[in-house]
Amino acid sequence: MATRIDGKAFAASLREKVAEGVATFVAKAGRKPGLAVVLVGEDPASQVYVRNKHKMTVAAGMESFEHRLPADTSQEALLALVDQLNADPAVDGILVQLPLPKGLDENAVIQAIDPDKDVDGFTTASAGRLATGLPGFVACTPLGCLMLLKDQLGDLSGKNAVVIGRSNIVGKPMAQLLLQESCTVTIAHSRTVDLPAVVRGADIVVAAVGRPEMVKGDWIKPGATVIDVGINRVPAAEEGKTKLVGDVDFAGAEATAGAITPVPGGVGPMTIACLLYNTLEAANRREGLA
Amino acid sequence: MATRIDGKAFAASLREKVAEGVATFVAKAGRKPGLAVVLVGEDPASQVYVRNKHKMTVAAGMESFEHRLPADTSQEALLALVDQLNADPAVDGILVQLPLPKGLDENAVIQAIDPDKDVDGFTTASAGRLATGLPGFVACTPLGCLMLLKDQLGDLSGKNAVVIGRSNIVGKPMAQLLLQESCTVTIAHSRTVDLPAVVRGADIVVAAVGRPEMVKGDWIKPGATVIDVGINRVPAAEEGKTKLVGDVDFAGAEATAGAITPVPGGVGPMTIACLLYNTLEAANRREGLA
Repeated sequence: MATRIDGKAFAASLREKVAEGVATFVAKAGRKPGLAVVLVGEDPASQVYVRNKHKMTVAAGMESFEHRLPADTSQEALLALVDQLNADPAVDGILVQLPLPKGLDENAVIQAIDPDKDVDGFTTASAGRLATGLPGFVACTPLGCLMLLKDQLGDLSGKNAVVIGRSNIVGKPMAQLLLQESCTVTIAHSRTVDLPAVVRGADIVVAAVGRPEMVKGDWIKPGATVIDVGINRVPAAEEGKTKLVGDVDFAGAEATAGAITPVPGGVGPMTIACLLYNTLEAANRREGLA
Repeated sequence: MATRIDGKAFAASLREKVAEGVATFVAKAGRKPGLAVVLVGEDPASQVYVRNKHKMTVAAGMESFEHRLPADTSQEALLALVDQLNADPAVDGILVQLPLPKGLDENAVIQAIDPDKDVDGFTTASAGRLATGLPGFVACTPLGCLMLLKDQLGDLSGKNAVVIGRSNIVGKPMAQLLLQESCTVTIAHSRTVDLPAVVRGADIVVAAVGRPEMVKGDWIKPGATVIDVGINRVPAAEEGKTKLVGDVDFAGAEATAGAITPVPGGVGPMTIACLLYNTLEAANRREGLA
């Protein structure tokens, strides 16, 4: 039976470590690290995320700057705010909560963020830095997956890693990170011909496709480490109820894998913890303390 | 017996196509596309490359702007020249010939190139564009490999591709390009545990490691397409003589592969042809003709 990787506990301990790092930063720099979060419009899920980010930012001892703008905010006004945050010395990290309301150009807004404050790692500049091995910021979800893997396995060098999914915010940066760790990395996706065979060769499986329980238990190599990034809401046994499942058939995979992240409670809790980690890192770099 | 992929002939036909595109560009834009090449110092190999680039640029109907600077050129003077070329409307592409003499910061010079004129594809901005699927310029060697593969195989979707080597200028961009073509892509390297087994699963093998004849013939899956990026000079049978070999044991692989690039005469000739291709593309984009 596989070890269940406790992302919630790991995230809590990471947030504690960040809080310690914040205290050291404050002592040296004479100010708190600052994270600015921009929320445009009234999307309920986004409001929940932003509230949680705010709480955890404050709990880690950082400044949280919230900017809530109406849904009819113009592109110009939003870009002006990003410019202002880029220039603000108290702001170390900038996060623009996605999705933006219709009519706003998400890509243009994201690209406007100073790469040195891009704690979400979504700019092209950050992607380029990651792709070429320069210091930069990596999107929080793949960074969280990597931390869980290293905590579980130690040195990843030489391991066969398969990333299922090739999105810009998870699959592709995940592959880059695993390559930096000297894994032999395979990127699989919807056009992969024999996905079960590809997964069967993997010591590390990262599933990030957004299809409920698509990766079957008997695809998993005995002893492999499985990281399930998917969060899919599906009907539950009880009528009218729903539940969350990952991209991996958990019950099936748990029997074969060496270790596996549950959904929920696996990768999910890592995201905000990694955002705080990136923000502290940004603050340290900006003050020459990194 | 494998088909020998004739890179020399393909490159010649690509240069002809570029020349036709140049004629169309001139008719529409009222000027020639311009490629600026900067050569610092007296490195003999670099001088040969720059001379060849100049000749082929002119032969394709483009303007070739050569800037030869002494080996003791300062970083400031070199950066000033790059800025001047960035601002020059007659210059569509900028290439700084590497290596630069000691004491000059190659990375800083490359990063100073306007990404819209980065026809060598070496800037972080170009790497970020490639990694996120935005239009940009791809380094000439992997671009040439991709062209040969598509010419040989047509649609690459679903094929298992293995890239051996993870350099920023060949292996990593090659993997990105193959992923864009919907291959299942594996990146292998010096830390890969069982490279022969990894290569045996591949429909497409791109070898870019710089180790003479490292990839053995019996690693090649019957019918696979093999692209050999290596150019290694080794002792020849006749005493005191040398010869060029690739990263693949050509004689062995030729017996099994479906198609293979020879060394020399495979990937090598594609590089300058792709540089001209990128320069025409840059000119078309800058004039809104792309």
